[in-house]
Amino acid sequence: MKIVLDCFGGDLCPDSAVEGAVAAVQEIKDLEVVLCGDEKIINELLKDKIYDKEKITVRHASEVITNDDAPVLAIRRKKDSSMVVALKALANGEYDGMVSSGNTGALLVGATLLVKLIDGVQRASLSPLLPTIFDDKNTILVDGGANVDCKPSMLREFAIMGGAYMSAVKGIENPKVALLNNGAEEEKGNSLTKEAHALLKNTDINFIGNIEARDLLFGVADVIVADGFDGNMCLKTAEGMGKAVFTLLKRYIMEGGLKAKLGYLLLKPSLRKLKKIMSSDSVGGGVFLGVKKVVVKAHGASNAVAFKNALIRAYEMAKADLPAKIENALKQNSIQVEE
Amino acid sequence: MKIVLDCFGGDLCPDSAVEGAVAAVQEIKDLEVVLCGDEKIINELLKDKIYDKEKITVRHASEVITNDDAPVLAIRRKKDSSMVVALKALANGEYDGMVSSGNTGALLVGATLLVKLIDGVQRASLSPLLPTIFDDKNTILVDGGANVDCKPSMLREFAIMGGAYMSAVKGIENPKVALLNNGAEEEKGNSLTKEAHALLKNTDINFIGNIEARDLLFGVADVIVADGFDGNMCLKTAEGMGKAVFTLLKRYIMEGGLKAKLGYLLLKPSLRKLKKIMSSDSVGGGVFLGVKKVVVKAHGASNAVAFKNALIRAYEMAKADLPAKIENALKQNSIQVEE
Repeated sequence: MKIVLDCFGGDLCPDSAVEGAVAAVQEIKDLEVVLCGDEKIINELLKDKIYDKEKITVRHASEVITNDDAPVLAIRRKKDSSMVVALKALANGEYDGMVSSGNTGALLVGATLLVKLIDGVQRASLSPLLPTIFDDKNTILVDGGANVDCKPSMLREFAIMGGAYMSAVKGIENPKVALLNNGAEEEKGNSLTKEAHALLKNTDINFIGNIEARDLLFGVADVIVADGFDGNMCLKTAEGMGKAVFTLLKRYIMEGGLKAKLGYLLLKPSLRKLKKIMSSDSVGGGVFLGVKKVVVKAHGASNAVAFKNALIRAYEMAKADLPAKIENALKQNSIQVEE
Repeated sequence: MKIVLDCFGGDLCPDSAVEGAVAAVQEIKDLEVVLCGDEKIINELLKDKIYDKEKITVRHASEVITNDDAPVLAIRRKKDSSMVVALKALANGEYDGMVSSGNTGALLVGATLLVKLIDGVQRASLSPLLPTIFDDKNTILVDGGANVDCKPSMLREFAIMGGAYMSAVKGIENPKVALLNNGAEEEKGNSLTKEAHALLKNTDINFIGNIEARDLLFGVADVIVADGFDGNMCLKTAEGMGKAVFTLLKRYIMEGGLKAKLGYLLLKPSLRKLKKIMSSDSVGGGVFLGVKKVVVKAHGASNAVAFKNALIRAYEMAKADLPAKIENALKQNSIQVEE
């Protein structure tokens, strides 16, 4: 499997991207990574690293799309940017997948316009893998923020695509799919979720009904379907809550005198573990579902570990031939798109 | 100030309601509480309590609206329920405010149909006072879940009503009002928040623009305006996140051996403080804004302290003559309701 890595545009790029690639090819035997971006800079970074030269190559691109760039303009005009060069080569079938930590909007537009959507898909979704209170269990949230003002039929697609991901990539048989709603009862919801609920009942997916946002992290479902605006509310609230918890705890410890400080030192490993889960790298990024090829968005502040994980995720998706699986799942549920 | 307390319908009712009332009249000099519900049961509970007999009286009602009752039917048919009796007496001007921990939907319907809405208000909102990382600062979230599929003009009303609350009841001069959105930039949002943003700019309130859900608990604004569906997403995510944090921490401590357990014991006061803020009684309930009289919803699991706080909150709102202040603020911004 050959994954192209957009090495520019993220906060810690290109250093962390290059370092992540070296770690990823060490971990996965049949993974090759192509580093896309300014070859002088990338080669300079590679110079001191020890790695299998056959597994990491460089593809030159002279421009960089930044977070300040307007997505559509950036994709149209920055034709020699690391993101556009990687996307075009991916679309041409040169690679099996792509990872980028750059401008999310530009990556979404670029994936949609250049790599194109799977037949029958109205919009690509950006889906983070949420941590849960169970160590070995993730839940995929479709959509995590790429699409607002969704139609009910889009939520139906999200459900099918999310189910295909969890079954093909994570090996979960008959994954449980739930609809994010303001109440568990069937009659609850706004006009979107009520209509979506009715549509979801008429699919061959394992639809378990509505769940409330309080259940997001409790592993109740394998797939949680939501309008991207609502998905964004949940992700950002969880992020803020995590930050608030540690801000307050730090203050209480400072105010708590010697006893609290000693307690903190003893409890540090547990608290660190908690912090790691709560500020999980997985929440910041996500996978694009609905695109013809595998595209993974690493979060903007990705460090080397986050890049390594994103590359492995892309590898797993490519290995599972996810785009084909999604296409099949959609055909099987023969979507009728309303206009 | 005379506040009527619906003593039935909550999880810990009527015991905690009666106990909360006794505590409230002890704390506030010019507060009288009327306990509404089965007089036999209430008098039995009052028997052992020490309190000023002039400050607590009983108003009989023979029925109870439960959480299983359908809201509209319950209000129409259970005419001698503690909730309906209290609401009708409030509407007649017998009391200055009301507190209930009963069926939220029924209370909203009852307040709207029996007590009625202030002129120019399209819908009453249910607004929790969120804790922030600053001990002495709350943010009011309007709407916290009462109304879904809001129109932009409703969000404009929510902003004005929330501002009136923070200025009249909390004494905040020119309260900062923000719109909950999926991005801080003006052009971000779904169709609702984009239109609402434009409307909010044309008010005399102190509109500071969009904020993201990650900022909810950081005291950035005094009032946060949202569609009730989105408000619900945020409140429930925060609730679930709080639960997840303590579930995981407990597990890590158990796995962490003697050192972690000792650390936990030393850090217990800090962790308890954190837990108290995060599972704050204020988040579970809220105030109804837009109703002609003061109505406070205590959360369903209210204990005596939560009831005492809800009664004090109703007292403060009545003392500040909040409904009149809201009416004035709406007139001043001469709402044009689109149909």
